[in-house]
Amino acid sequence: MTIPRINAARLWADLMALGKIGAVSGQGVTRTALSDADLQAKDWLLTRMRDAGLETRTDAVYNLSGRLRAGRSRQVGLIAVGSHLDSVPQGGPFDGALGVVAGLECLRTIQEHGIDLPRDVELINFCDEEAAHNTGTVGSRAMLGLLHDGEIHQTVSPGRGTFADALRRTGKDPAALAEARRQPTEFSCYLELHIEQGRRLENAGIQIGAVTAIVGIYRYLVTVTGEAAHAGTTPMALRNDALVNAAPLFTLLPEWVHACSPEMVGTIGRLEVHPGAPNVVPGRCRFVVEIRSQHREDMAIIRDQIRAYAGARGGWQVDTLLEKEGTPLAEPLIQAVADAAAQEGLSWVRLPSGAGHDAQSFAAAGIPAGMIFVPCRHGISHHPDEWIEPEQAAQGCQVLLRTLLGQANRA
Amino acid sequence: MTIPRINAARLWADLMALGKIGAVSGQGVTRTALSDADLQAKDWLLTRMRDAGLETRTDAVYNLSGRLRAGRSRQVGLIAVGSHLDSVPQGGPFDGALGVVAGLECLRTIQEHGIDLPRDVELINFCDEEAAHNTGTVGSRAMLGLLHDGEIHQTVSPGRGTFADALRRTGKDPAALAEARRQPTEFSCYLELHIEQGRRLENAGIQIGAVTAIVGIYRYLVTVTGEAAHAGTTPMALRNDALVNAAPLFTLLPEWVHACSPEMVGTIGRLEVHPGAPNVVPGRCRFVVEIRSQHREDMAIIRDQIRAYAGARGGWQVDTLLEKEGTPLAEPLIQAVADAAAQEGLSWVRLPSGAGHDAQSFAAAGIPAGMIFVPCRHGISHHPDEWIEPEQAAQGCQVLLRTLLGQANRA
Repeated sequence: MTIPRINAARLWADLMALGKIGAVSGQGVTRTALSDADLQAKDWLLTRMRDAGLETRTDAVYNLSGRLRAGRSRQVGLIAVGSHLDSVPQGGPFDGALGVVAGLECLRTIQEHGIDLPRDVELINFCDEEAAHNTGTVGSRAMLGLLHDGEIHQTVSPGRGTFADALRRTGKDPAALAEARRQPTEFSCYLELHIEQGRRLENAGIQIGAVTAIVGIYRYLVTVTGEAAHAGTTPMALRNDALVNAAPLFTLLPEWVHACSPEMVGTIGRLEVHPGAPNVVPGRCRFVVEIRSQHREDMAIIRDQIRAYAGARGGWQVDTLLEKEGTPLAEPLIQAVADAAAQEGLSWVRLPSGAGHDAQSFAAAGIPAGMIFVPCRHGISHHPDEWIEPEQAAQGCQVLLRTLLGQANRA
Repeated sequence: MTIPRINAARLWADLMALGKIGAVSGQGVTRTALSDADLQAKDWLLTRMRDAGLETRTDAVYNLSGRLRAGRSRQVGLIAVGSHLDSVPQGGPFDGALGVVAGLECLRTIQEHGIDLPRDVELINFCDEEAAHNTGTVGSRAMLGLLHDGEIHQTVSPGRGTFADALRRTGKDPAALAEARRQPTEFSCYLELHIEQGRRLENAGIQIGAVTAIVGIYRYLVTVTGEAAHAGTTPMALRNDALVNAAPLFTLLPEWVHACSPEMVGTIGRLEVHPGAPNVVPGRCRFVVEIRSQHREDMAIIRDQIRAYAGARGGWQVDTLLEKEGTPLAEPLIQAVADAAAQEGLSWVRLPSGAGHDAQSFAAAGIPAGMIFVPCRHGISHHPDEWIEPEQAAQGCQVLLRTLLGQANRA
């Protein structure tokens, strides 16, 4: 079949209009899940879905869908396409938003060209992908039955409300959570376009990433206990300085990770020194070690190195915060994305995603999931400087449309 | 002359009574300068000074004095003895308090034994030694003309009030500051008993420290700037991690200090990693390096090593926060304290003070100053666990009395 062209100008205009919701000059976009700005963005999308003639639906966890019905010869197994409109605090206008708006543009293009699809296509804006009230991807996991018991009633840090609290404020009843649940058999596949949030595409000058997997994440809280003491009156020889004890690991971790695999990453991003006064020898140093890889064997190597290092020393404690394995995406969809890029005359590469996405929930539920990455400027995201060029948005959207049509027409 | 014995039971009872003011069970003593608890402690002392028949006086910065007049053959140059009743938040019952209460006990003992001194002796409780509203030793510096212009109107950190504000709340006029000023020629010497706040005496099993100097303090704010990035999507090879860049200095500093002098100390007690999220590569690491020594040459060596290390690297900045030189105490008084300890049959050692004290203000004003240290349990101070035994308080007080009487009777 001939693949129509998406309307690049309309796509960009929509992205720019949406990007104003929750935006503060110089401080990026703040559209945390279920905030006023997020609800306003949902309304914005709802209006556009209705204008496009889609069948809209808001579920029990405030996922928002717009469905394009198949034509005459309807087959079982709809194609889901989507992402999320919520953002981190002071984030950018494209993370999540690109996937939703591009999905909308694909459905409009299909309708305008009178294409009669053999399967339903459902555009979904998932609620709270960005962990505003929980550990993230709440909406997609609720839809696919992947939330832990009571998870929406738990708070991730003291003083932060729960997802249930936030949901209640919108007028929805958290007790109705199960109503958001859908059967995996409803879906034939899930497709998501997203900015890369890294610099591999940009550095390599490549236009499209065919995502192979969502990497796994292991996180450990390491507590090194020394002895707080007066920094003026305690001789060096009598000290047990928690920061000095902990410091060698800060440089060992990147060495271990580098030696293990070039695709793996390891980070100490949160660190506290207690009591934290210039004139007190640190009595405790506490930090979070995060490692990510698509290969669980590699993550286990680093975890074991950290545990062995801690175990060989006094005053070290390692608590597991998270051990989430990587999720491979569906090989036929990886290939379909690569083929679509090639057919569009775009350069492409296979690469894993270092960040989590709603696609992971589909893959975890056994539904074939595919993701398309486009480069973002300097790899920056979750930041007011997050940016892509109109051409990059259009290229990603066009590859999404071609992949979607290919999947819809599969036997 | 025969040296009378101080009343150890009365000394201890006073320390325990005073220790209740501002105390909260399990949270130590909070008697920050000019707080309600501090004012209550001043009233407690005032009553006891009056009961002891001392001439009392409260000056313009709320220093509180009690003077014992000399007898027949009065000589010029009074002997000042004192310390401070204010505490850090959640501190202990002896830091400062011991010196004031022991001074009171000395004057009572002198009176009870009908000793006719040739010089006046003035017990002084200095206001705000602990830097509640400023950089500390405010009262003694105000008395000796050592405050910087406008210093009492400055705040040391955002959100904290100034000393002037606190003084005003007590009904005193900060504009009358100069009235607290006294001429150095009024004083023949100053003596202060204090807990060591370190473990050198305890570890060596020595009863009395004859303090040789107050060490100098240099403080630097070091800022290491890298590049914040997504911890999942930024390959190790493309990172500029501020914490990883900074970390080698955390272990180098103690090595440098150790190699420079066994009496020197160096500490990184405050450290911040920005933005401080587990999933973000640190873009900035900022920490305070503090070094202390009685020898300015040694501090200059470490300062230059830090500057050279920073200068050889990109993204490092070193800002000077403080460069305060050490203050030697008066050699005749160091010897007098050692002699008094020996005559009391107590073991003693000469040692510098790693912490600042009001004695430093006297030495800086050219007035001979001497300090006596007694051990405190495990060297702990500025903490609810701060503790000394009644016997240690009595030994320190007895050495103070003997030193004081020796100085009073000097020609």
